[in-house]
Amino acid sequence: MKSVSEALQLVRKHIVMGTGVNELSLNEAKGGVLAEDIYAPMDLPAFDQSNVDGYALGEPGETKSWQLKGEVKAGDAPHFELEQGMACRIFTGAVVPKGSMAVVMQEEVKREGSRIMLERFPEAGEHIRPRGTQIQQGQLALPRGKQLNPAAIGFLSMFGIEKVKLRVPPKVSILINGDELRRAGETLKPGEVYESNGNMLVAALRQEGVEQIELKTVSDDLERLTESCREALAASDFLIVSGGISVGTYDLVAEALQKAGVEQIFHTVAQRPGKPLYFGRSNNCSVFALPGNPSSSLVCYYLYVLPGIRFFRGEGFRELPVFRGKLSHELIKKGKFRHFLRGYYENGLLRTKEEQASFQLKPFASGNCLLILPEGDQRLNQGDEVAFYWLPE
Amino acid sequence: MKSVSEALQLVRKHIVMGTGVNELSLNEAKGGVLAEDIYAPMDLPAFDQSNVDGYALGEPGETKSWQLKGEVKAGDAPHFELEQGMACRIFTGAVVPKGSMAVVMQEEVKREGSRIMLERFPEAGEHIRPRGTQIQQGQLALPRGKQLNPAAIGFLSMFGIEKVKLRVPPKVSILINGDELRRAGETLKPGEVYESNGNMLVAALRQEGVEQIELKTVSDDLERLTESCREALAASDFLIVSGGISVGTYDLVAEALQKAGVEQIFHTVAQRPGKPLYFGRSNNCSVFALPGNPSSSLVCYYLYVLPGIRFFRGEGFRELPVFRGKLSHELIKKGKFRHFLRGYYENGLLRTKEEQASFQLKPFASGNCLLILPEGDQRLNQGDEVAFYWLPE
Repeated sequence: MKSVSEALQLVRKHIVMGTGVNELSLNEAKGGVLAEDIYAPMDLPAFDQSNVDGYALGEPGETKSWQLKGEVKAGDAPHFELEQGMACRIFTGAVVPKGSMAVVMQEEVKREGSRIMLERFPEAGEHIRPRGTQIQQGQLALPRGKQLNPAAIGFLSMFGIEKVKLRVPPKVSILINGDELRRAGETLKPGEVYESNGNMLVAALRQEGVEQIELKTVSDDLERLTESCREALAASDFLIVSGGISVGTYDLVAEALQKAGVEQIFHTVAQRPGKPLYFGRSNNCSVFALPGNPSSSLVCYYLYVLPGIRFFRGEGFRELPVFRGKLSHELIKKGKFRHFLRGYYENGLLRTKEEQASFQLKPFASGNCLLILPEGDQRLNQGDEVAFYWLPE
Repeated sequence: MKSVSEALQLVRKHIVMGTGVNELSLNEAKGGVLAEDIYAPMDLPAFDQSNVDGYALGEPGETKSWQLKGEVKAGDAPHFELEQGMACRIFTGAVVPKGSMAVVMQEEVKREGSRIMLERFPEAGEHIRPRGTQIQQGQLALPRGKQLNPAAIGFLSMFGIEKVKLRVPPKVSILINGDELRRAGETLKPGEVYESNGNMLVAALRQEGVEQIELKTVSDDLERLTESCREALAASDFLIVSGGISVGTYDLVAEALQKAGVEQIFHTVAQRPGKPLYFGRSNNCSVFALPGNPSSSLVCYYLYVLPGIRFFRGEGFRELPVFRGKLSHELIKKGKFRHFLRGYYENGLLRTKEEQASFQLKPFASGNCLLILPEGDQRLNQGDEVAFYWLPE
């Protein structure tokens, strides 16, 4: 049995990195991961630019006033230079004419006919954004491996970039194992339950931009299970098996994976929920077998599979972000395992529900975080700080 | 000029709530917001269920051993009851036969032929999940207004639910204002720049599940701008105008909105970036005019428009989550405005870049959070705690 840290290190070490690259239009690229370093194709700003609405000033003349000469608004190319003692009206984003020593805000100027007087003499370069101050042509704009958030989409748009090369997300096969499982719409016989992990894992994978997902249910039959594993291994970058990975007589997944040629890296982790977790690898396919209990399954997905998918896409083994909050109630934790409690965070306060059994999805469904309770006994009081993983929404 | 708190209160008060409802298949419902309370259509678990692989025990007989009689695996309907002194093999998730007083784990049992002996006498009900312990038929499973995360999808799948009624996200029109703006692919003349706010806002809106987006560029012409506003108001639930909302001669948006019949609720907020922000309303359309500087535009989107969209969808005015981190460097903040600095959070530490000018998108593109620096002067040291908004990924 591995500790959580050991298990994470082993996944990080053995997970497969993808190689596929796809060129996409920038307005379809949100959430994608850059497959290339992007260097600035031009300076930003591309010209000395006014920061405010006001007046561009030439070098001061002999008096303290400036003679007005034309105006430049955003988008204009000024066809004049500002000589000594001359000024022009200018607007935010407009080209600062040659010869300007500064721009002053309109609120600070007294205008009399075609002359302006200043209350305060500006510093050289004031309210001018010099060409290239955001970035210079040829400098690295965004590095490969960067996931494109809306600001990054905006930033690349400023260069007029139309297409970007993105890493292709993995193809994922999900095998759901269990004779007792029925699909929605079917009638349950006594003892049967509706399959829920498939839809749940598909939803979680889509949040990570994974779209190529094969979902299949397989009965508790070693031969069929082995064959399904073989097919999935050949067709996928990730194989996720749900259920059948405990130690019961009908838990055939570990054996089937072995027969299908998967090298086991570890099986069982000192954690609750999710102890039966299995991780292995076969050629270029990363294999996770998750416990069948819904909460266990989803906890293992968030902790191990999700950073694995990000690694595959070239982002590095990026885990969920960890924050800290104050407990809104006392909490007693016992045992040598690391616990992950489904909880709810808001405005600095953390609370968990009592129903933390691994078959319970309700607290997970109405929660937004996973409290991290380290190995060993702990008695936590109301107001104590606890670290937690923040779940993707 | 409003304070940030006042501005948020006014948006919360005047923002329009949507009414549209759409029925979707559960496996397409991720991220959607429930339009109905969902009551459990059945008990979960639907039967007394074994929690482990082991043995179900009838009431103890005269000896300390139990006579074995059959087995129940997950999915089986046991056709027998356990009489006094009888036990059966049972597996996780299986129906516990009538007459069982507890289930014991296989590790705690010594088996001799068809009899089993116990090391420890179990408590009544041990390792049995009684029917209805997760939820009972008719209890509220998930309330209207709940956004469906993967766990919620899994939870509803456990009931065999196939379709859910979801709130329809708003139709959004984006009007980009500015004569200096060119589309990607066009050649820039001197003084012109590539339009970037449109793509950026579309990407941000899609993260919130908004798909019906009209993006249009309008020149700095009062008549055309007014006409475009009128059309957008009639066709949309939200109108977002980008640029032209400052106080310059060519900032015509406030006037155009007034001519188009929008009631101004506020214009300008004591914040940096984003001071020129305008909010108004016309019949059933909520109107935000965002400053043209890219960072200002996106900050205003995250602070005001995003919770407005969530409100429209019936989630309530849900703002971005606020966490706290320790500054990795000192920070001096001056002035009466509230500041939002583009920053990067990792492992408890916060850092910001120096280039925080509102025309700079690079620190936003490579950041993941917005530091919140309250109104007034502040001198923060390395290690001081600062609150921040965590940005959607």
